[in-house]
Amino acid sequence: MLRLLTAGESHGKLILALVDGFPAGLAIDTAQIDRELERRQGGYGRGGRQKLETDTVEILTGIWQGTTIGSPVTLAVANRDAKLEKLKDVERPRPGHGDLTGAIKYLGSIRGVLERASARETAVRVAAGALARQLLAEFGMTVFGYVVQLEQIVATPREGTRAELAALRDASPMYTLNPDADKEIIERVDRATAEGDTLGGIVEVKVYDPPFGLGSHAQWDRKLDGLLAQAVMSIQAIKGVEIGLGFEAARRPGSQVHDEIGYDAAQIGETSLGYVRDTNNAGGLEAGMTNGQPIVVRAAMKPISTLRRPLASINLATKEPESAAYERSDVCALAACSVIVENVVAFTIAQAFVEKFGGDSLAEMRARYDKFLELARAR
Amino acid sequence: MLRLLTAGESHGKLILALVDGFPAGLAIDTAQIDRELERRQGGYGRGGRQKLETDTVEILTGIWQGTTIGSPVTLAVANRDAKLEKLKDVERPRPGHGDLTGAIKYLGSIRGVLERASARETAVRVAAGALARQLLAEFGMTVFGYVVQLEQIVATPREGTRAELAALRDASPMYTLNPDADKEIIERVDRATAEGDTLGGIVEVKVYDPPFGLGSHAQWDRKLDGLLAQAVMSIQAIKGVEIGLGFEAARRPGSQVHDEIGYDAAQIGETSLGYVRDTNNAGGLEAGMTNGQPIVVRAAMKPISTLRRPLASINLATKEPESAAYERSDVCALAACSVIVENVVAFTIAQAFVEKFGGDSLAEMRARYDKFLELARAR
Amino acid sequence: MLRLLTAGESHGKLILALVDGFPAGLAIDTAQIDRELERRQGGYGRGGRQKLETDTVEILTGIWQGTTIGSPVTLAVANRDAKLEKLKDVERPRPGHGDLTGAIKYLGSIRGVLERASARETAVRVAAGALARQLLAEFGMTVFGYVVQLEQIVATPREGTRAELAALRDASPMYTLNPDADKEIIERVDRATAEGDTLGGIVEVKVYDPPFGLGSHAQWDRKLDGLLAQAVMSIQAIKGVEIGLGFEAARRPGSQVHDEIGYDAAQIGETSLGYVRDTNNAGGLEAGMTNGQPIVVRAAMKPISTLRRPLASINLATKEPESAAYERSDVCALAACSVIVENVVAFTIAQAFVEKFGGDSLAEMRARYDKFLELARAR
Amino acid sequence: MLRLLTAGESHGKLILALVDGFPAGLAIDTAQIDRELERRQGGYGRGGRQKLETDTVEILTGIWQGTTIGSPVTLAVANRDAKLEKLKDVERPRPGHGDLTGAIKYLGSIRGVLERASARETAVRVAAGALARQLLAEFGMTVFGYVVQLEQIVATPREGTRAELAALRDASPMYTLNPDADKEIIERVDRATAEGDTLGGIVEVKVYDPPFGLGSHAQWDRKLDGLLAQAVMSIQAIKGVEIGLGFEAARRPGSQVHDEIGYDAAQIGETSLGYVRDTNNAGGLEAGMTNGQPIVVRAAMKPISTLRRPLASINLATKEPESAAYERSDVCALAACSVIVENVVAFTIAQAFVEKFGGDSLAEMRARYDKFLELARAR
Repeated sequence: MLRLLTAGESHGKLILALVDGFPAGLAIDTAQIDRELERRQGGYGRGGRQKLETDTVEILTGIWQGTTIGSPVTLAVANRDAKLEKLKDVERPRPGHGDLTGAIKYLGSIRGVLERASARETAVRVAAGALARQLLAEFGMTVFGYVVQLEQIVATPREGTRAELAALRDASPMYTLNPDADKEIIERVDRATAEGDTLGGIVEVKVYDPPFGLGSHAQWDRKLDGLLAQAVMSIQAIKGVEIGLGFEAARRPGSQVHDEIGYDAAQIGETSLGYVRDTNNAGGLEAGMTNGQPIVVRAAMKPISTLRRPLASINLATKEPESAAYERSDVCALAACSVIVENVVAFTIAQAFVEKFGGDSLAEMRARYDKFLELARAR
Repeated sequence: MLRLLTAGESHGKLILALVDGFPAGLAIDTAQIDRELERRQGGYGRGGRQKLETDTVEILTGIWQGTTIGSPVTLAVANRDAKLEKLKDVERPRPGHGDLTGAIKYLGSIRGVLERASARETAVRVAAGALARQLLAEFGMTVFGYVVQLEQIVATPREGTRAELAALRDASPMYTLNPDADKEIIERVDRATAEGDTLGGIVEVKVYDPPFGLGSHAQWDRKLDGLLAQAVMSIQAIKGVEIGLGFEAARRPGSQVHDEIGYDAAQIGETSLGYVRDTNNAGGLEAGMTNGQPIVVRAAMKPISTLRRPLASINLATKEPESAAYERSDVCALAACSVIVENVVAFTIAQAFVEKFGGDSLAEMRARYDKFLELARAR
Repeated sequence: MLRLLTAGESHGKLILALVDGFPAGLAIDTAQIDRELERRQGGYGRGGRQKLETDTVEILTGIWQGTTIGSPVTLAVANRDAKLEKLKDVERPRPGHGDLTGAIKYLGSIRGVLERASARETAVRVAAGALARQLLAEFGMTVFGYVVQLEQIVATPREGTRAELAALRDASPMYTLNPDADKEIIERVDRATAEGDTLGGIVEVKVYDPPFGLGSHAQWDRKLDGLLAQAVMSIQAIKGVEIGLGFEAARRPGSQVHDEIGYDAAQIGETSLGYVRDTNNAGGLEAGMTNGQPIVVRAAMKPISTLRRPLASINLATKEPESAAYERSDVCALAACSVIVENVVAFTIAQAFVEKFGGDSLAEMRARYDKFLELARAR
Repeated sequence: MLRLLTAGESHGKLILALVDGFPAGLAIDTAQIDRELERRQGGYGRGGRQKLETDTVEILTGIWQGTTIGSPVTLAVANRDAKLEKLKDVERPRPGHGDLTGAIKYLGSIRGVLERASARETAVRVAAGALARQLLAEFGMTVFGYVVQLEQIVATPREGTRAELAALRDASPMYTLNPDADKEIIERVDRATAEGDTLGGIVEVKVYDPPFGLGSHAQWDRKLDGLLAQAVMSIQAIKGVEIGLGFEAARRPGSQVHDEIGYDAAQIGETSLGYVRDTNNAGGLEAGMTNGQPIVVRAAMKPISTLRRPLASINLATKEPESAAYERSDVCALAACSVIVENVVAFTIAQAFVEKFGGDSLAEMRARYDKFLELARAR
């Protein structure tokens, strides 16, 4: 069982992720984790704080000589702006944040809530995912996320090889797969910046080459679609999650939704069992289990809740109307969101992978993976 | 901690839900549970099986003299069509079901998977929700679900009092809040029936009068939006989940999304703390916590995967192309889906409620609820 | 992950165990489960109720054609004396039971607590263990429990082959491995019966031929010694748990405690890796992991709390002194206790086994078990 | 729900405890945590390492202005001897440690296992307990641990007020409550030191003034006796756990075991409900729930597994006989063990307390505690 807990406040000393149950024997490349952290800080529309902090991971525990040993792995990211002890409380709760509800639930300060509720926490969820995908990579899986829509602007993904798509995305200021849309997107972000407004959008993540049978149909809380939905919806600012066609599946008749099943012995290869589908409307998940097709998850990000042109609120002490507090923020963090969802999905898939193949050591997992393919081909 | 596990196969003796951690001292009305089970069997477009079985709950454990005692509550629904031991295996996996992937994952039969993956299991998830909402009702909460779209037909909810809306829904053949759309819907279902096709759609659930502070911002797996997304996405045939505006929030600027905060002492009443919002685009959840506004969840149901005009598949033994197996099924179970999502949401909210207010006894919960309102008003 | 929840009251319709995550593909012999249930009802010193009820298991879910299918398995045992609805509350809490504390915790009746707190629940924990050991048996493991002490009478286990010991135990009225002690034991029980008193004692359980590496050192809640201690201590009437030498280890210097490590290639066989120990003072567990030696667990059972010659108590309504309530009970259930601990240990080991080797299907587990032995021999 | 995960290796940068679900609003005194850490390093018979490191806690997350805010609290203790990256593997597994079994389970190095299996980890379990008892103290609970036996030397606790006993313990070189035994103990430790041997013993922990109704009878994994047994048995070197009379209860007839119930209105006070017992053989727990009496837990510590006069082992590479590796170690860590068990018990009780009274904020918990007493008195 692969477990994750995070800790840390936005302006505290650090934020960290504790990953329990990570397999022994995997050489960890911290540069790959840092690359994801850097990507998370990028994208058009970010505010000053992202420039202030260049996040890098420090692995505090769980590694010896660069390799995991079966111990819990602790991933820490320091806060450059670690001024928490000097900060005062906030009196004007910001709509869209947990300020009001948290202060009431905990019968305490707004500061105590906003520091933890902040999207700063996503840095270590990215780090945990970036660790997890190094495990997935050992089994040929890749996880790839990008932006498909900013507010009303649809950035339809171009077709191409995986390498071509990766190049497109990495060249895009908003991490889209559509350079034409990027121009429009930049204009829209600039306009929102001028107006003191914020923007959200839709991101998509694909997991290529998963094996059959991650997740389970047998109990509601072991279904992988449910676990993915939980993990993604729990990301700050996410208000919707789809798998495969998602809401579009609701708009079509069954004959245009379900992915017909074929078999082509010629396809049998390193990971394929020979079962083929012409479509992947299910997004790789049937009955809560992976069906060998790419996993496809989409998420809707609401616009950032902190606006420079502030929203109406109250003073929580006096209950009188006042403008919401403003803490320096981004106009659009959609590109970052694609990185976060990508890595959160990666972590969730790694959890399901460890559940299916065990988590003691990489050597044993490899032997089991091969044996499963062999048994499955003989089914 | 309120826990739920279900068990049972579609054609086995029974299906059951084991609910652990349910508070003592609540008188249970089984007729209310049966009413939800009956609603689940209704709706236009259902096949023969729903007429065969009139589901009723039997409470096997956890009740003495009609009242809960703090013991685990077991809710059982018998299967009228309990012929599992006589059934043979299925050789042609049905697209959209877990047949293919389950048979491979478990290196076993398709029958062994489809019996458990079947939506028959949702009967006891409804029963568990119908139990849970009796607890919520003690604290003034109501949970209300309905259909808002069938395939391309949008059934925009009418405005009205809660009683009027309930009457509208209960009179609707598809559990919508829009009689005009119903006519179109019936025609569409009839056409799909004639064509051997199936239909899905979108359902919406509202939870009225939740207290502040269910869920928590403090850890990813305690955020109530994530827990709701998991519970709903784990329902058979669900491919998308939204909270509040959901994907629509991605299409608007921040200034049109976030719910501005006001205060009106005149509103203070049985459950209100006086904080008011003119909009509820957040769907009652900010930072993973309830904010006192109605909770709004929407889910996309794909069309039923078993089509009378069967889809292409293979014979799993020979690997030769054959049509998918057909087991008698519905054309459209969207009305049922609204009932299932409604009750699954109710159960999830009850879990969060027990987490916040404790779960030993109703008497103690009541005292705590009142005390929390008192402390919160003094915040 | 193999999960267990139980439900049911002592005089309710039935008691049941829901086992989630049990591997597919295992043919289940219900007669073996019934044999354990029958053993649980035996032993010298039992009262009338055990004669009233001859427990047999009914498998409600999770089986098709006699074989598990990966679904949750529900094991039910009916109550012959299912008169709960007619029973009144109890007003005089019995010392040693949960009567007083439960009535206060739940602010309710004593009846509501005692019905669930009753050792009747152990019938389905035995059933769950009897299911689990059928899985262990597929991997050559056997679990064997017996009585080693009744009150002051030590019944030192005889030496012998496993078959000889099993024969000894099954012939013993108190499930000991020492016929000489049995005579003394019977006299003591008869005397206690005459005096209206009750008796407890100590039981021991061995698990033969476990593989290396069940459990983990890496996190406190994954240590197998801790998990065994929890499972055993949670059994009604257990007040102490030991592993290996247990408390005796505290009384010896280190040089007489730790099991020196040797290697004998000639020992390599079906399950052995060739590592040998002349002693097994650790009881098969080092750093929370199995070390290939037999697992040894001992538990102390307090005398039954319900005495015919009643203890002093109060009337909970009036707070006046009164004798404790008496419900028909046993004088000594120590033989039964050995069966319960045996099966609870079996279930816990099965959980650790599924954690190590996965739980999808027996076929896959077998292949993994063999592969692990192969890799471990090459270590 | 109060959760705990720890991380860190014996010679890594640090060890840490992540405590999730800790209530907001509690001012934390780190000096109290440091005092427990210091006590853990004391006691007669400790080796050089304890002098090298003076442990102090650093709170990395979860605190603002000295007070908890509902966020996860991370407690870190730095390793002075943080030379892990320079350390080589160990080839000769030490009996009594996880060296052999861990290297096989994880198909890896011994170093990778021993670094995490080391009792160094207990420093942060102590820190977590020292945090938790600050919460318990707010509700009048104190947790008190001491040594009652070293090897064969019984140190029968003296009678006295709590203050007197605390003074006795704090003046004792082995943290006993019996100065006479201390002389014998010191001689025995000196002899073991001379002989290159090690010593264990028995420790006892009492929790004074717990409320009624922590834990639950309703499900096996919610019973507080089971949870205590797991937590304590999972501590390095513990091989036995008892509650109340423990194994002694097995040696007495029922009439001399169960604690008769009385009522004395004059006793009703800040925490008492008026129910009285003349004995506390149950150790404060009946049916898995606290009964208002002091909780009494005893644990058996085996002698330390690393002996200066080394035990027989093998070279894991060659399989040839060689003496076990020796890493500098203690002769007797029994005094430390009493501190560890004390704080582990404190944490477990805090978990049960949060489960019963909720964990959002201290202010709310206080109101609930008072209300529970009020309702319980009216029962």
